[in-house]
Parts: sequence; C-alpha cells; structure tokens
Amino acid sequence: MKKKNKKVNAAILIIGNEILSGRTQDKNVGFIANWLNSKCGIAVAEVRVVPDVEKTIIYHVLVLSKKFDYIFTTGGIGPTHDDITAQSISKGFKVKYEYHKEAYKILENYYGKEKFNDGRKKMAKMPRGSKLIYNPSSAAPGFIIKNVLSLPGVPSILNSMIENCKKYLIKGTKIHSKTVNLYTVESSIAKQLGQIQKKYKKFVDIGSYPFFRLGKIGVSIVSRSSSLKILKKVNQDLLKLIKAKKIKILAI
Amino acid sequence: MKKKNKKVNAAILIIGNEILSGRTQDKNVGFIANWLNSKCGIAVAEVRVVPDVEKTIIYHVLVLSKKFDYIFTTGGIGPTHDDITAQSISKGFKVKYEYHKEAYKILENYYGKEKFNDGRKKMAKMPRGSKLIYNPSSAAPGFIIKNVLSLPGVPSILNSMIENCKKYLIKGTKIHSKTVNLYTVESSIAKQLGQIQKKYKKFVDIGSYPFFRLGKIGVSIVSRSSSLKILKKVNQDLLKLIKAKKIKILAI
Repeated sequence: MKKKNKKVNAAILIIGNEILSGRTQDKNVGFIANWLNSKCGIAVAEVRVVPDVEKTIIYHVLVLSKKFDYIFTTGGIGPTHDDITAQSISKGFKVKYEYHKEAYKILENYYGKEKFNDGRKKMAKMPRGSKLIYNPSSAAPGFIIKNVLSLPGVPSILNSMIENCKKYLIKGTKIHSKTVNLYTVESSIAKQLGQIQKKYKKFVDIGSYPFFRLGKIGVSIVSRSSSLKILKKVNQDLLKLIKAKKIKILAI
Repeated sequence: MKKKNKKVNAAILIIGNEILSGRTQDKNVGFIANWLNSKCGIAVAEVRVVPDVEKTIIYHVLVLSKKFDYIFTTGGIGPTHDDITAQSISKGFKVKYEYHKEAYKILENYYGKEKFNDGRKKMAKMPRGSKLIYNPSSAAPGFIIKNVLSLPGVPSILNSMIENCKKYLIKGTKIHSKTVNLYTVESSIAKQLGQIQKKYKKFVDIGSYPFFRLGKIGVSIVSRSSSLKILKKVNQDLLKLIKAKKIKILAI
C-alpha cells in the first residue's frame, strides 16, 4: 500500500477531565506520534483535549474525522459512568451503541461468567459496525469505526495495544529527522537559519528549540523531511554556518 | 471582581511542530491548568496542539477566542523563522504586526545596543494594541491582545511569567477536588459510583482513574466541585460504599 511521498495524517483526541484539570500529565500524544511516524509514516497534524461531555466529544469526533485521515481517541472506554467515548461516537455516527459479540466473549472469558458484572459488560458495548483493537494486557478491546480508532487512556495499556492498530492503517511516507545540538543562543543564528529554511522551503521543516543543560544554554536544530538526501544537504549547510560562527557542537 | 459561582474558562493553544512530532513532551498544560484553577478560579475547557503554520494558527486563535473567555498560546514567540505566533495573531485580528515600544526598550536594555540584532528585535514585534506580560527570566515579554495571552513554549520561562498574567484575568469560582485512592478495580465499584454521580449530578463531577503502584492495581476517585460542603457529602457516600464493599483505602 506504500506509495512514494504519500502524505497520511492523523489527529489525536484526548478525552478526559483529568488532563484538562492538570491532575494527570498526558503521555499518550508523544507515544502515538512517534509510533505513527516511525511505523506507519503517518504524521500527527492536530491534537485536542476535551472534557467527558457527550456533545463536546461528538462535535470534535465529527470535525476531526472529516478533516484528517485518521483520529485516535484516548480515554473514556472503561467501565465507569464517566467513560462515555463509545456511546458518544455511536451517537455522532448515528449507529447503535450495542454489545460487540466478540468483545463480549473476550471479556466474559477473561473475567469468568460469575464476575462478569455490568461495569465489565459495558466495556463490550461499541458503535455497531466497529472492528476490534485487541488488548493484550487487560482484555477490554478498543475499536475502530470509520476512520476513528478508540484506545484507552492508561498509557501502559494503550502502549500494549498500539501494534494492533497497524492493520487498519494505510501507510504514508515516513518523515526523517536530524538534530544538531549546539551551545549557542537562538538569536545569534536566527537570520542564517531562516535563510537555510527558505532555501529548502518545500522539502524541509527546520525547527529551533532552546534548551538548558548542566547550567548551559543551547539550541537544538531539528530538520524534518521525507528525503534523507535533502536532510544531508541541510546538515552540510548547518555545519558551514556553525563553523563560520565558531559555535561549539554538543551533539549531532 | 470575584462573584459567587462565576464560571470563567480558558483554552490552551499549543503551537509547535515539536509537540506534534512527539519529539518534545508538553509540560505547560498541567502547569497552566493548575495555576489557573488554584489562583484565578479559571477552568481549562479545551486544549489544542497545532503546527507552526500561519493559516492554521490564525484559524484556531479565532475559533477559540470566540468560544472561551481566554486563550493561552504557548510557543512560537522566539527569535527564529519558525516563531510565527505574534505575526499570525496580528493577521488573525487584522491589526499591524509592529515593534512594541516598551518591549523594544526592555530587550535593547537587556542585550545592550551592540548585541541587539535582528533576531532579538523580532521578539519586540507584536500585534498593535498588545499589552506586555513581563518575563523575569529571559526578558523577552509575552503579550495579551483581546482575550489572547501569548507565552513562550520553554516551561521554565513560561512558569516564571505566569504570575504576570494575573492582572489581566477576571477571577472565577475555584473548583475544589477531593481524591480517594483505593485498592480495587473500577468495574467492582462502577455501578455504585454511577449512582453517587447521579445523586449529585449538577454539583459534582466524579472521575474514576485506574492506577498501578508497586505491582498493585488501584483506582483514584476524584470529585470536583465549587462547593466544599457538597464534596464532603460525596466523600461520606464514597466511604459508605467502600465500607460496604470491604475495599482497602490507600489514601484519602
């Protein structure tokens, strides 16, 4: 399915009051973004964090599913009252919210018939027509309907499920990146860096990110492109600039 | 300015390819959300992460500034070519992107006339009519125009500036929270928890968050409300449930 320079993108919709309140630090964006780019050549183009409110979830799912090739939702697929992702997506797509037969069997088998209570059964309910994203760590599967893939919010469980998303995704062109870490300040290389970015305008995105390490100030120059060849050229130009400015390189 | 049960909300717009690519882990959402709630009684209602693309930034700034009382943008106000937040907001609000006299003086004074190069001067350019958000750690100020407050992306600098946002914000009612950590699984208390949530429907938001600690599985029950009195009642109901279910409490 891989084509030359095929751009495929995705959005991440984080569903959870606990992220918005500042109680919990999200760890899923970085993980999903890195996995999507390295394994599938898919770029995360937008992230939204929204509360556990049905009409809000529906609004954002519909907007993002039109705008991007895929949406990954995280959170809200557990057994409690505040887990309303699956029912919200069902309403949004106007399909029934019902037991998924295979998910029901997986969960019944995992918990045993006696301990398979209503909360646990709830985790087998999904939008009609969903396909399962298997969960090797705690059984309760995620699901995909249309271009929306729903995963849990707990990072360790999400991480264990991500490989099972692969078969549902069309591959795009991987974006490579090269980083040069320098002991300098952004403003002393800003002008020349802008010129290098202009030179490779359409083919490379160059980002400049200040850092503080061991009491010293530095800058990471990150170049991103689908072409390794062009990245090499950019790096050559960067090295010329660094030499001319007599800047100390920390790491390439 | 504080009124009884006045709801004031905000959105956070994170501007930066480095967050979307997974290279950098955002640390500003949690910090801003906690500060806004505890110091100003303002709730973060939505977060978006978008790339360093002018038309995308303009689109989201305009949408969010209509939808919420305040927007906090993070990132993109440094000296390099990929720092385009100030010019994008200027375009979005159809005002001139120009030197802010006081910001220019602050920066000229900080760097000294000789070292005040074009990159550094760029940091004094803002939407016409902006007021400054002073920066005690690296001089370059943020700015506020209309209901949009623009801060840098580097967490340590942002953190040092946040108190200087206060004078521009109307205060709302603080949301208090109580957390009970239990050694149990969500699905064994899901039903009763849902009943408690229903009982206090309009006054409390109860969230349930599984955790793993020292090899044990647990659940944090977080109740959030503007009323401490109601939170106490909710906690009493939770304790009854816990007692009835013979669940071990880890911490309240």
